[in-house]
Amino acid sequence: MPIDLRFDADETALFTDLYELTVSAVFFDRQMNDTAAFEMRMRRMPPNRGFMIAAGAERLLEALEEYRFDTAAMEYLASLALFKPAFLDYLANFRFTGAVRAMPEGTLFFPGEPILEICAPLIEGQLLETLVLNQIGFASVAATKAARCAIAAGGRRLVDFGPRRAQGVDAAMIAARSSYIGGFAGSSNVLAGRRYGIPVFGTMSHSMVMACERERDAFEAFAANFPKLSTLIVDTYDTIRGVENAAAVGARLREANVKLAAVRLDSGELGDLATRARRILDHAGLGDTAIFASGNLDEYRIAELLAARAPIDAFGIGTALAVSDDAPSADFTYKLVEYAGKPRVKLSSGKISVPGRKQVFRMTGADEKFAADLIGAIDETPSGVARMQRPAPAISLPLLEPRMEAGRRIAPRASAQAVSEARERAASELKKLDGRYLALRRPAEYPVKQTSAVNAMVISEKVRAETRQE
Amino acid sequence: MPIDLRFDADETALFTDLYELTVSAVFFDRQMNDTAAFEMRMRRMPPNRGFMIAAGAERLLEALEEYRFDTAAMEYLASLALFKPAFLDYLANFRFTGAVRAMPEGTLFFPGEPILEICAPLIEGQLLETLVLNQIGFASVAATKAARCAIAAGGRRLVDFGPRRAQGVDAAMIAARSSYIGGFAGSSNVLAGRRYGIPVFGTMSHSMVMACERERDAFEAFAANFPKLSTLIVDTYDTIRGVENAAAVGARLREANVKLAAVRLDSGELGDLATRARRILDHAGLGDTAIFASGNLDEYRIAELLAARAPIDAFGIGTALAVSDDAPSADFTYKLVEYAGKPRVKLSSGKISVPGRKQVFRMTGADEKFAADLIGAIDETPSGVARMQRPAPAISLPLLEPRMEAGRRIAPRASAQAVSEARERAASELKKLDGRYLALRRPAEYPVKQTSAVNAMVISEKVRAETRQE
Repeated sequence: MPIDLRFDADETALFTDLYELTVSAVFFDRQMNDTAAFEMRMRRMPPNRGFMIAAGAERLLEALEEYRFDTAAMEYLASLALFKPAFLDYLANFRFTGAVRAMPEGTLFFPGEPILEICAPLIEGQLLETLVLNQIGFASVAATKAARCAIAAGGRRLVDFGPRRAQGVDAAMIAARSSYIGGFAGSSNVLAGRRYGIPVFGTMSHSMVMACERERDAFEAFAANFPKLSTLIVDTYDTIRGVENAAAVGARLREANVKLAAVRLDSGELGDLATRARRILDHAGLGDTAIFASGNLDEYRIAELLAARAPIDAFGIGTALAVSDDAPSADFTYKLVEYAGKPRVKLSSGKISVPGRKQVFRMTGADEKFAADLIGAIDETPSGVARMQRPAPAISLPLLEPRMEAGRRIAPRASAQAVSEARERAASELKKLDGRYLALRRPAEYPVKQTSAVNAMVISEKVRAETRQE
Repeated sequence: MPIDLRFDADETALFTDLYELTVSAVFFDRQMNDTAAFEMRMRRMPPNRGFMIAAGAERLLEALEEYRFDTAAMEYLASLALFKPAFLDYLANFRFTGAVRAMPEGTLFFPGEPILEICAPLIEGQLLETLVLNQIGFASVAATKAARCAIAAGGRRLVDFGPRRAQGVDAAMIAARSSYIGGFAGSSNVLAGRRYGIPVFGTMSHSMVMACERERDAFEAFAANFPKLSTLIVDTYDTIRGVENAAAVGARLREANVKLAAVRLDSGELGDLATRARRILDHAGLGDTAIFASGNLDEYRIAELLAARAPIDAFGIGTALAVSDDAPSADFTYKLVEYAGKPRVKLSSGKISVPGRKQVFRMTGADEKFAADLIGAIDETPSGVARMQRPAPAISLPLLEPRMEAGRRIAPRASAQAVSEARERAASELKKLDGRYLALRRPAEYPVKQTSAVNAMVISEKVRAETRQE
């Protein structure tokens, strides 16, 4: 019996918009299947964002290696009575044979920059559109949200508590993975721990306090079973009395040379409660017991609490991270930029695309800070692009790297390694981004320019597009 | 090789917060595994909502039947070095043996009402918390968003175009399923079409227009291949010239007795463009060619366009539906309400729970409109509850129905049938809800009260909770 909640590898190909298939059927019929380049980029920044973090590419590429229409998928497609037998045969044998260039996961990116390029026979690039946008889009949105929370927390430990609030299982997995890339210490999501090697964290539940006759019984039982994980939740009834009960348990533990790890505040005025809890714990000689806060937290609220000097040592972030609540989506597009060796452009109002295959170059100044990005043509070189800059950058680096060739990943890594590399890259890049782009509200706009080669392409394609409507 | 994107049935159990497992380990150790009742309810309405639509239960229940920790899961849990062998053995043999009562999918619900109850040994109910909230939460949020769009569209056809914007694959599947329940005509999501029997729709892509040398070639090719699906996208370059090209193709098709289905506007001032497009099409004798609009639409924008009499016949809704952008989550909780036959309560600031097992009764007046809901104790009867109401309702119906017993679904249905029944139920219930609760902005608050039996329980448990902190 099929399980709705499941998403099998062999269902990946059917996860597409119908028009990808109908348009592909026309291409097939007209034998339009020359090499095409499709680019994913973000049109504009989501609100209050000064940077974005690329994520999701390795997960996507792994899936592309297994991309196929299985028997059940083919039966369904045939049942729609839309497609000719020859096209259905083509799909039944479909494999992705193209090349992918992408910014490595953890790379900072900005509006207008291609972050991933699929170069493949037209139909292959077309069919992938939905999956590419779906996977890279939210992964990048979530990694960015996590990095913003990490910036606000200024080095304090952050844990993803989002699985219950995420928009489905895949979203929770992506949020856990992306939050680790963005600088979180780990996740409560056990499956994400297994798949991605992310550290898993947990405290204790209100239900445990409620199921026990006395709050203190629950605290003692939990601390006895999990001395290293002994974060006691103190707000099931009255928070301050809960802290007092936790402190009493902590004092008893200390006699046995066991440290009470933390108390967790999950409701009420967290700043005020943290101050009072700190006093109670210190008074009980539990100066090394941490205060963990959760409950409708996001980067803005964390910043407020810390600005008010709330003595909070770690934060659990649920909803705000899991759905990126102030910016649950970003305006990503996946556009044809070249077909059969010729550049292509779209001129829709407010949605103009930039034709031609490209490279993104990042200029770093002598101060080791990122100075600007330049979007160049694919055949431009880092040094060539850098020579045109005033002041001259110390370093000019191309950001799009070959990640897949002929449908196979280049240097594939295990999930855990890919995630850990991405995390390191994000941390290192964030250090090189000037503070004015890191601001949580109204950040400055990082400079992204196009080379004259790209500008010339735009102008000539706009002219050519006129003739396409004749 | 494992595929990250995949979500296997045997991974369902590992999709949980770590604390569900640690707390369960303590319960196991203390032999605390009497029957517990956990309730899922929504604390407060998301912004601008006057009603919510329950969705996701059948998908969840299907998964619960298969809920188990497989070998790989057990290996990972053992590797954490947190759990004792006896508890790991227990997990290795874990099956859900409990009962579930739920509001049928498609039922309207309001804050404070239990929409699903798990009644099972304590550990079983505990472990399911994360999955239950994750699945029912977003499914209900998305069904509600869809219904709001349908209300705004006033009978015009709506199609889910969200897969590329959704937060992962599962979110896209849930959004497609929930949008159909909420009144959409179908989805572009082909996998959702196969799984749920939802009608699939598609237009044509910008890339096809861009890949062809001339726009008109693309229109002719598409219409020739898919005469019944001939919705031509007209905004790749200049929209009005695109409409003129589409009209020219439509006129030629008509000579062959083929109707041009629609033109699709996807950018710019949709209202103005629709008016001009309508004029061009009518002038070309294509009065029966529809105008399909998409591009950053939601219920508010649809209402504005139609209030301004934009001649739009159908809408494609992407981002706003897929992520429910103005309310991407709702404040759902899953709380222990009874353990070992005794009611339980949580008193956290702003997050007080209501103890005891319950039933929700919906009162319908003589005008066949819903008058109010009453949250009663589980042993109260519809007639008993109705007798206490002034004015007396014509009908009093219990909303929570037994859906699972001893870990097996009661009267399981095929996916497609479950979805179609839910869709009918939502449509029928929305007709019975007064217009003031359907308003898209600042709707009235539907009356939900508690019976005196429930009120008495709250008071006595608050008192008892005092003693629990001693």
